[in-house]
Amino acid sequence: MKDCDHHHVDMQVLSTIPVLFNYWAKGVDALETSKFLNDHIAGIVKQYPDRFIGLGTLPMQAPPLAIKELERCMKDLGMAGIQIGSHVDGWNLNAPELFPIFQAAEELGAAIFVHPWEMLGSDKMPQYWLPWLVGMPAETSRAICSLIFGGVFERLPKLRVAFAHGGGSFPFTIGRIEHGFKVRPDLVAVDNQVNPRNYLGKFYLDSLVHDPLMLEVLIKLFGEDKICLGTDYPFPLGELEPGKLIESMNFNSITREKLLSKNALEWLGIK
Amino acid sequence: MKDCDHHHVDMQVLSTIPVLFNYWAKGVDALETSKFLNDHIAGIVKQYPDRFIGLGTLPMQAPPLAIKELERCMKDLGMAGIQIGSHVDGWNLNAPELFPIFQAAEELGAAIFVHPWEMLGSDKMPQYWLPWLVGMPAETSRAICSLIFGGVFERLPKLRVAFAHGGGSFPFTIGRIEHGFKVRPDLVAVDNQVNPRNYLGKFYLDSLVHDPLMLEVLIKLFGEDKICLGTDYPFPLGELEPGKLIESMNFNSITREKLLSKNALEWLGIK
Repeated sequence: MKDCDHHHVDMQVLSTIPVLFNYWAKGVDALETSKFLNDHIAGIVKQYPDRFIGLGTLPMQAPPLAIKELERCMKDLGMAGIQIGSHVDGWNLNAPELFPIFQAAEELGAAIFVHPWEMLGSDKMPQYWLPWLVGMPAETSRAICSLIFGGVFERLPKLRVAFAHGGGSFPFTIGRIEHGFKVRPDLVAVDNQVNPRNYLGKFYLDSLVHDPLMLEVLIKLFGEDKICLGTDYPFPLGELEPGKLIESMNFNSITREKLLSKNALEWLGIK
Repeated sequence: MKDCDHHHVDMQVLSTIPVLFNYWAKGVDALETSKFLNDHIAGIVKQYPDRFIGLGTLPMQAPPLAIKELERCMKDLGMAGIQIGSHVDGWNLNAPELFPIFQAAEELGAAIFVHPWEMLGSDKMPQYWLPWLVGMPAETSRAICSLIFGGVFERLPKLRVAFAHGGGSFPFTIGRIEHGFKVRPDLVAVDNQVNPRNYLGKFYLDSLVHDPLMLEVLIKLFGEDKICLGTDYPFPLGELEPGKLIESMNFNSITREKLLSKNALEWLGIK
């Protein structure tokens, strides 16, 4: 709260840190830790309802339990949605097992925040923090591609999903991804025949790219209604002065307001 | 040759396909396959010296043998340089074992082309061609980061290195990479204390991004002297009409000429 006041953050979205997803555990055990974490976050939000919004965590590895806990988060705990990982252990986000959870999220109006975790190739690049600098951006692209090519966005057009870290490596590689879709539909377009570029502007990304040129790219590619201030607080890879990049860029007041708060509130479904 | 004529490609750089790097084999065996491939490419170049330039492949897993074959490529076979993978099996490109090869390449004036292969996380994303659409861009960023943070560019300032596919996910994530360097020097700046952004413009990237906005980003970030037409020929993920993206973009004739040929000739050390 002291940090929020210091940095003039009127409202912050709270979610658990990804190492506590516990997707590796037995479903019932992860349900227990999820409940504990969700109750804790809900408690803070209740204490400071004007300053915090809560996102829950779910035992995604056990879809029926996840849906139950999602309902509790939305109906009992007053949360705005959930945070999930870029994959669920063995499952990518297109796994048919996960679809009922996304379906329930759409029905309940739950926002989804996708954060990278358990980065692919971590064991192959132990030096220089590369799992965070190279692996995490790839994880986020893996998640976006899985939801696009798995037809999740196509089948659930009202689902409101946001991705961390400016979409990771997805935005810059959209040309490659679209080209792959076009030249090898036998590999890429097997579950969804719609061009991936059609989904630009249909999900949200945070603004955490640490570079004005790349923030411009995000706005050009996804539209100024889909980029939300992201801080990664309290991690060092985050924006240590929340909003600094956006405020440095001489946007007009309407765009500025959208990026700093309006878009996030729309993603969260808060009027 | 028919394809070159059809697409008005005056000159093409030939190199082996990455699956034939054979870095997994015993050094002496990979030396043998390298020699066979290099002799073959040199033979084609000899037959059509005005149409082809050759890059060799080396048994990188056996540095002394690699250096010997590199010398043969440059002195006997008349090649312009070598193509290497984004990693050498267990070694990233910063491995001290590989440094003498890079040192020899600098001394011999050999250009280096880095191509992604054996993509990290392939087993975790078998669907939708994701090893190519997500894994390859990450591989290239892994390679660039390893050469930067390992101090290879710093110690060998005359080494001429080019990376495939517009640098993969590196360009868009430069802000994150630089931020990581700044906030966790204990993890990132252990072998080289120079800001990674200082190396922008000190290596080459090909233009294969399949998107005009991203090609603009490349030019803004790396300079119009460092981007070379890349085709990925004969693979479907390549530019099926070589040069089409560059030619579609209304560059002035000087920039156009740089991107289509001049930069590549400078990278290759051909006057």
